Amino acid sequence: MPAIESKVDVLIIGAGPAGLMCAHGLAKAGVDVRIIDKRPSKVAAGQADGIQPRTIEVLQSYGLAERLLKEGNQMHMAAFYNPAADGSGIERSDRLPDVTAPTARYPFEVTLHQGAIENIFRDAMRALGKGQAPSGACPREFEKRSDTNDQFSWPSRSIEVEQPVVPTSISLSTDAAELASRDSYPVTVHLKRLSETEAQRLARPVGGAPPNSNEVAADGNNVEVEEEREEIVRAKYVVGCDGAHSWTRSQMGWKMEGEHTDYVWGVVDTIPDTDFPDIRNRTAIHSDNGSCMIVPREGDLVRLYVQIAEIELGGTGRMDRGKMTPEKIMEVAKRSFQPFRLEFPKALDWWTIYIIGQRVASNFSAQERVFIAGDACHTHSPKAGQGMNASMNDTHNLIWKLTQVLRGWASPSLLKTYELERRKYAQDLIAFDRKFSALFSSKAQSAGNVDGVSHQQFVSVFQTFGSFTSGIGIHYAPSTIVETKHQSLASKLIIGQRLIPQVVIRTADARPFEIQDLIPSDIRYKVIVFAGNTKEVMQKARIQKLADELEKPERFYKKYTPAGAAVDTVFEILVVSSMTKTTGDYTDIPTTLRTHWSKVFMDDVGVAPRLGGGQLYESYGIGSEGCIAVVRPDGYIGTIVPLEGVDELDSWFGGIMACA
Amino acid sequence: MPAIESKVDVLIIGAGPAGLMCAHGLAKAGVDVRIIDKRPSKVAAGQADGIQPRTIEVLQSYGLAERLLKEGNQMHMAAFYNPAADGSGIERSDRLPDVTAPTARYPFEVTLHQGAIENIFRDAMRALGKGQAPSGACPREFEKRSDTNDQFSWPSRSIEVEQPVVPTSISLSTDAAELASRDSYPVTVHLKRLSETEAQRLARPVGGAPPNSNEVAADGNNVEVEEEREEIVRAKYVVGCDGAHSWTRSQMGWKMEGEHTDYVWGVVDTIPDTDFPDIRNRTAIHSDNGSCMIVPREGDLVRLYVQIAEIELGGTGRMDRGKMTPEKIMEVAKRSFQPFRLEFPKALDWWTIYIIGQRVASNFSAQERVFIAGDACHTHSPKAGQGMNASMNDTHNLIWKLTQVLRGWASPSLLKTYELERRKYAQDLIAFDRKFSALFSSKAQSAGNVDGVSHQQFVSVFQTFGSFTSGIGIHYAPSTIVETKHQSLASKLIIGQRLIPQVVIRTADARPFEIQDLIPSDIRYKVIVFAGNTKEVMQKARIQKLADELEKPERFYKKYTPAGAAVDTVFEILVVSSMTKTTGDYTDIPTTLRTHWSKVFMDDVGVAPRLGGGQLYESYGIGSEGCIAVVRPDGYIGTIVPLEGVDELDSWFGGIMACA
Repeated sequence: MPAIESKVDVLIIGAGPAGLMCAHGLAKAGVDVRIIDKRPSKVAAGQADGIQPRTIEVLQSYGLAERLLKEGNQMHMAAFYNPAADGSGIERSDRLPDVTAPTARYPFEVTLHQGAIENIFRDAMRALGKGQAPSGACPREFEKRSDTNDQFSWPSRSIEVEQPVVPTSISLSTDAAELASRDSYPVTVHLKRLSETEAQRLARPVGGAPPNSNEVAADGNNVEVEEEREEIVRAKYVVGCDGAHSWTRSQMGWKMEGEHTDYVWGVVDTIPDTDFPDIRNRTAIHSDNGSCMIVPREGDLVRLYVQIAEIELGGTGRMDRGKMTPEKIMEVAKRSFQPFRLEFPKALDWWTIYIIGQRVASNFSAQERVFIAGDACHTHSPKAGQGMNASMNDTHNLIWKLTQVLRGWASPSLLKTYELERRKYAQDLIAFDRKFSALFSSKAQSAGNVDGVSHQQFVSVFQTFGSFTSGIGIHYAPSTIVETKHQSLASKLIIGQRLIPQVVIRTADARPFEIQDLIPSDIRYKVIVFAGNTKEVMQKARIQKLADELEKPERFYKKYTPAGAAVDTVFEILVVSSMTKTTGDYTDIPTTLRTHWSKVFMDDVGVAPRLGGGQLYESYGIGSEGCIAVVRPDGYIGTIVPLEGVDELDSWFGGIMACA
Repeated sequence: MPAIESKVDVLIIGAGPAGLMCAHGLAKAGVDVRIIDKRPSKVAAGQADGIQPRTIEVLQSYGLAERLLKEGNQMHMAAFYNPAADGSGIERSDRLPDVTAPTARYPFEVTLHQGAIENIFRDAMRALGKGQAPSGACPREFEKRSDTNDQFSWPSRSIEVEQPVVPTSISLSTDAAELASRDSYPVTVHLKRLSETEAQRLARPVGGAPPNSNEVAADGNNVEVEEEREEIVRAKYVVGCDGAHSWTRSQMGWKMEGEHTDYVWGVVDTIPDTDFPDIRNRTAIHSDNGSCMIVPREGDLVRLYVQIAEIELGGTGRMDRGKMTPEKIMEVAKRSFQPFRLEFPKALDWWTIYIIGQRVASNFSAQERVFIAGDACHTHSPKAGQGMNASMNDTHNLIWKLTQVLRGWASPSLLKTYELERRKYAQDLIAFDRKFSALFSSKAQSAGNVDGVSHQQFVSVFQTFGSFTSGIGIHYAPSTIVETKHQSLASKLIIGQRLIPQVVIRTADARPFEIQDLIPSDIRYKVIVFAGNTKEVMQKARIQKLADELEKPERFYKKYTPAGAAVDTVFEILVVSSMTKTTGDYTDIPTTLRTHWSKVFMDDVGVAPRLGGGQLYESYGIGSEGCIAVVRPDGYIGTIVPLEGVDELDSWFGGIMACA
């Protein structure tokens, strides 16, 4: 039987968090996308499960945070235990905020098992295009756009993960013309759908670990498949999100750079019975009997990370899993809890052991046609809670770039910024992880071990890296899409970082909004006009001038909006004035800058002060003269210019947009 | 063909807001309930649409507020316009908060058309018992109860409105034994299911009004029906929620007491085109050309209430609808807006005219077996935004009482408190409405009319009645279920009023919770132990003593919890201490008072201060000695006693509970 042949704009390999984030984001934007996974069914327990504050913000921008917050556990407090001076065991040294980044919109971490997180994406993907999708961050009237020509609407598509499906080969055209063409499908991937038998064989537990321990995963490419289920897919783009043992990376011949450490850790997920008062806080225990990290989970579950000393590595440098049992992990945990009681009356939900390794892939992309993302690009210590977060943020960075290029809005060169931005981040992450892991794996300072890590040292690192571990600190370096020239106009709204959350008041009805909810991840650029006090004659004239400029056909606003498309198709203009709620009128703003009454805001305290508001200009460092900020579709500040800076905006967009 | 005979615990007649609230609440509690409506389909537009702050709190307690807030419009600001001194038309006198009740959890009103509100209930009712129901106000681990014996669990039931179905007769047994029995079905109702033909006939517009204008409704009892679709229902309880022209009330022979006024108003729902800057605020316009009230609605819709002068009443005292056209209403609105422009480019969504009447039914109940609720009990001016709110709060008051009696927990005498509490409220409402309507219908003060109502007078009434119009001020008088003796122990937490919203911090994990979310409408009493600082030896001893008392079999906690049922089946104990987040441990609380780690809280500022917390003891007026508050299942404070007051709790519960 001949293989089926098909075409697709984007093929995603691997349906973990990176792949699902990518598939959901692209499908929501109406992109022709498929996602495959070699596993017979979704992950049910264990694995990564910590969501950082910044990742919650990102999920909220896709309308997915609400369910995460409903299902997940929240970690607000971090507790620290160290050896008591009297040798009786551990005692509490401190309780400190778990999240120290001052601008975090969600000042806590969320823990939820990976299967539940993946279901949030899977359910949302399925509901897309059926009118049942999560309604997103904005109320309905705000989502309203100018009437849209069908030709320029990209309705969301409902998609499902295709599984169990394995890729068996991948090849990228070497023809320069084909690679350069917008209409070509230069990547060819052979796929095989596994039979039920194969799927079940793959689902069998490996070694003595529960079915979902994935540290020593079966290699998808060695699986036998039925010949007749083969498919040849020609894709414009392929994104390999296939994990630490990435098949895509290996096929492309890219290496992981870096090395394993000697730190070996065991993990158990369970519902313990204990009199330990901080069992529901993120707790770091340094005891004379070893180190332990507590990460409370949804419901009554608790994850315990325990440092393991006695383990032998096989000849390959890989762990010999057979030498370690969950009983040994639990025994170490019990010892480190003394004098507190710790029992394990219930079956373990999941367990694994791992050696901390810190590595980054040599390449993230080939010809901007084949990409890798997530664990395929970077592996590091799970305790820092970075893995899944870095993975989802990789593809969040890629979604809008791929979509804008596929729609013909952006030049394909925009895709070069993916590796530029995310590889730098992965390297920073690994550097941080080295420091943090070494510290955490070290012995605690005590009477018998004066050279050990002191509580102060540990807390100092914990807090210094607060903006890093929260994800809030992601800071993209200057590039074609990050221009820092006019940083002084908004001295605290850092160009290259995400838009800082602040409550603003809608001028027409005084309703408060979180400004982040006004910039959903909808592929459009948000042009935020910080208009100052438009009741002042001079400022009003400047704003009118800006409106007049934007109406000119040679300006970016008209030039890069496709002819015949609604005015807000590519660029959405929002106004944040410094008028006050008692006298400000939305009708004061020129109609060019308000395509709907719902898009004009002011920086004032809400009618009910506890709903917030009134600190935006100050906290962004914006003066009374105002400015314009371009927020990229992923929520990061691309550039800031004066109200008279339309020329500079023309030039900034000119560097990345395709001629209409 | 003989009529079908059937039995049901509760039959609800009428599926407007009062009936749907009742049906949803009972079905959620697992009660055997049916709801019928004579209309062929649900309401699509118009009618009542304002949800007060207190009603939002109530909906939240059933897990229904989230969708309301997502779909509805919010009114934060009220604007006031009066004649300009120069005679040029109206000008803005003021902008003031729309909601002035300081403790409102949701400091705004929500507007949404009645059909959408009804759909929230209908969808939630349908999803009950299928694991798809709204997850309610609490996170999952908090909802966890002690393991429940099947015998004592009442799983939610999925129900649908049966329509079009009309009742044709109702009779209540006069047999005292039957009326007194818990197992009897003393109410007999004959029902007829309408044919498609009849349903369509009923759906035809009446007069010249759009199909959904319900001011002059067809009388359901005059409808011809097919003989063979008859059913005889024997019910334990019947609740008539069948509107201002209530068939139930008429069958029971109860009268409406009060009268119509001379104030005639017209209403239009539309998307206007205007340069009026307060079109998205609740705006009261007093002009020389008439009065107008603007109520912005979901999306871009706006409701305009306009005072109409020239209308003739027919011989019956009812309006002659044919004399009034929507064009006349729009013309008056336009005139009152001058000098602002007001156009009506789109078709009207809905319109009606009405005469303000203020009346209360002579009885709310017969033998505590047949009840009426909602508009069947009270009619008043829609502008005050009270109708639908009073209606839903009527049945909110009834749901837990019916359920507790049906489960055998409460004495049937508990049901007497329904009329006691809600009739008093209806009378207060009517008294307020008289004052407000007269004021609003009066001419504005101006140069030519010095005796008119001044802006100051109007604003003063608006603010004085703020707690009333917000619904926050509902204050049930002392009765068997409202005991005020120890008010001084919590001087600002008023017994008979609802539990005041406050953020508390969960002791085990420092996660902030709105205390109202800890007392969902789940039929159980919440016994909140304000424990003071349990790190103090004396206070800890008092709390231990309380725990010991509660374990005694003769105490209410054990006595009224069915033998074999989980300890928290009838009474849920919550602890709010005044420990601090850095040192407080949930393990300090005796296990009797913490059936789960998630039920121990403290009054402290959250780890992230902007998440709130730390003002509960002060704002409730509770001293360091603490106290115990019993919160009724509807969220109102039933009684407050000292920590040593278990005797008094025994006596309070003894007055209303049935012997186990």
